[in-house]
Amino acid sequence: MNAAVLTIGDELLQGFTIDTNSSWLGTTLLPYNIKISKKVAIGDNLNDIISETQYILNDKFDLLFVTGGLGPTHDDITKEAFRQFLDDELIFDESYYTQLIHHFEKRSIKMPESNRSQAMLLKTADVIPNENGTALGMHILIKDTHTFIMPGVPGEMKSMVKNHILPKYIKKSPVENSITIKTAGIMESHLAEKVNGLMENYSHSYRYAFLPHYSGVSFRINKLNKIDNLQDVKDEFYKAMLPYAYGINNDTLEKVLGLKLIKNNYTIATAESCTGGLIGKRLTDTAGSSEYFLGSVTAYSNQLKSSLLNIPNDIINTLGAVNEEVALKMAKGVRAKTGADIGISTTGISGPEGGTKTKPVGLVYIGVVTPEKSMVKKYNFNYGRHIHREMTTTAALNITRLAIEKN
Amino acid sequence: MNAAVLTIGDELLQGFTIDTNSSWLGTTLLPYNIKISKKVAIGDNLNDIISETQYILNDKFDLLFVTGGLGPTHDDITKEAFRQFLDDELIFDESYYTQLIHHFEKRSIKMPESNRSQAMLLKTADVIPNENGTALGMHILIKDTHTFIMPGVPGEMKSMVKNHILPKYIKKSPVENSITIKTAGIMESHLAEKVNGLMENYSHSYRYAFLPHYSGVSFRINKLNKIDNLQDVKDEFYKAMLPYAYGINNDTLEKVLGLKLIKNNYTIATAESCTGGLIGKRLTDTAGSSEYFLGSVTAYSNQLKSSLLNIPNDIINTLGAVNEEVALKMAKGVRAKTGADIGISTTGISGPEGGTKTKPVGLVYIGVVTPEKSMVKKYNFNYGRHIHREMTTTAALNITRLAIEKN
Repeated sequence: MNAAVLTIGDELLQGFTIDTNSSWLGTTLLPYNIKISKKVAIGDNLNDIISETQYILNDKFDLLFVTGGLGPTHDDITKEAFRQFLDDELIFDESYYTQLIHHFEKRSIKMPESNRSQAMLLKTADVIPNENGTALGMHILIKDTHTFIMPGVPGEMKSMVKNHILPKYIKKSPVENSITIKTAGIMESHLAEKVNGLMENYSHSYRYAFLPHYSGVSFRINKLNKIDNLQDVKDEFYKAMLPYAYGINNDTLEKVLGLKLIKNNYTIATAESCTGGLIGKRLTDTAGSSEYFLGSVTAYSNQLKSSLLNIPNDIINTLGAVNEEVALKMAKGVRAKTGADIGISTTGISGPEGGTKTKPVGLVYIGVVTPEKSMVKKYNFNYGRHIHREMTTTAALNITRLAIEKN
Repeated sequence: MNAAVLTIGDELLQGFTIDTNSSWLGTTLLPYNIKISKKVAIGDNLNDIISETQYILNDKFDLLFVTGGLGPTHDDITKEAFRQFLDDELIFDESYYTQLIHHFEKRSIKMPESNRSQAMLLKTADVIPNENGTALGMHILIKDTHTFIMPGVPGEMKSMVKNHILPKYIKKSPVENSITIKTAGIMESHLAEKVNGLMENYSHSYRYAFLPHYSGVSFRINKLNKIDNLQDVKDEFYKAMLPYAYGINNDTLEKVLGLKLIKNNYTIATAESCTGGLIGKRLTDTAGSSEYFLGSVTAYSNQLKSSLLNIPNDIINTLGAVNEEVALKMAKGVRAKTGADIGISTTGISGPEGGTKTKPVGLVYIGVVTPEKSMVKKYNFNYGRHIHREMTTTAALNITRLAIEKN
């Protein structure tokens, strides 16, 4: 099936909001054999919405996903545009209006009068429920194009697609045409060297893409023919990418590490300096992480390094806070303080200030102490403050994963 | 000036790459009074490129920015599409070919034969140099539309725009036509109620947009006429949005809070449970935060709440960990432990598991203790784990900002 996406909203055009909805739609719909071949973004302008919808529909797409402009304010005009385009009517839905009032009451908020507009619905449309917000979605078959009108808020749009549009209108089971192998701890070009031979071998029936991020390089394999066995080919690539490969598709490093901790019956705690709490945050992104994550101590000031993690003051006074010994003592300190099996620590210079000739911005030491071993690794991630913290966190999680794996 | 953007590439449509180029163009061009009113993304398909270019040009845009499809591989067909569309010729540029060979030699890489295609240029185009790559850009005046064809690699595209297109073809100085007011702690519809009158008053010469995020609602004001005083109008709106308005444009809540802490000579520390370290992470996103941020204790397990933050075990055993008293004691505990002037705490149920009838998923208590006052606020942010943590963190930073502001 061939699909188009029409996103509506000035903020997307002016660049104040980055459109992540349409890429989510792209990857989510692909396994259902729905290929997006056109995306159009326009502003909150009635005539533009009407004329672009007309132009897109001329191309006889099977599906059209429209997002945005369903909010309660004056610039939300998507419904009015479709009313005019379809020569339809907007009908006031009394029972949904009552629901809306209850929704606000439950939150002890008086419903603003403007929200009344969210109970106005196109007469010819089927309603698509919204579990995460107040703007209902709509489905209309326009000639042969199933048109879905949804809010632009990502969480609301996604749950409409997953919980309603796919089961009710698409009714197919997803088929996997592509797999992404996730890696950490290796550069794109070095990863490519490891699999050049394999890529060559399978080039007649698979396509590949390297997707480098600061948190690791992903490698996507697309199969071209239905009959080929994607799983087997993935397994070969995966093996060639070990120990850097840690998972596939939506696996995250923190989730994979969490499963390994559970398997080993290990608890974990972090002692953070330059990462400011980000490792703890990433570890607790995973639901159920309370099973292994006990907590963390962010000792940003040197004084807290000593009072909360028992780093002797004279070490910091002599060597400074960014060195191998402090990293090791921080990891050991948080282990002792929390009783966790594994302690992770970071101490580094995220910048932009604070660098010296011997300790430049970007320098970081990561400590990992497990019941079996202690280690400190030194890196220089000099790509700006934010990336420094992201890369340090990823490296810390990955070192810990490898430390347990080798058990 | 009115502009359109055409991005070319299967990767963008399938969603494996998120398009950040066009939002960069949006915010970068706006001060030059260039307004993007349409963006179209299509795949690497010759006919689609030709027909979409034609359709866009029908609308008589002043400027058209085309990105992507200038690489050396077989699916890079942008030049061929424009050759056909313009009935133009592709000319081999001998001197650029020599440059290309040198470029590869300098890197000790043999130039792949396919790169020869990058020395083929449209006869009617002016060349736009590429300081960061091998694909040249092109400028063609098609009827009255200045059309810029650029590579899709963000770094290459951006430097072409900044170093060549703006100085050579736009030739204007940037002017601030819009200001964004950032708010926290108020819903979009309630914020709208506060400024409806003002919006009405200035509707002849300003345009507005509400941009809701989980971390707060932004309100953007665009001026339509050169002569109007954007600053004065912004000040009126800002005043009407107090105390929710906290800054403008690129200000972040954590940065604004940081400046207030410095002004009051206050230090701060956090005691986190459900946020897992995210408040500390956000506070340290700001460079120079070591001036006021001492550190944090993430006590994810109940045991650490007692051993690291001195919450009496019997309180947790009787009342559980998610309640007003524990929140207050956590904030006081981290203040005592770190010596910080201000302690922030969070304890809540981010979900998806862990909810009960009396303490549902989404419930959270946020404690803030300053030298002058202590407070605990209760919220229910039941929008999924990630959003729960984002909203809790934003609320915590905002409550703290307000607590200091009222001094």
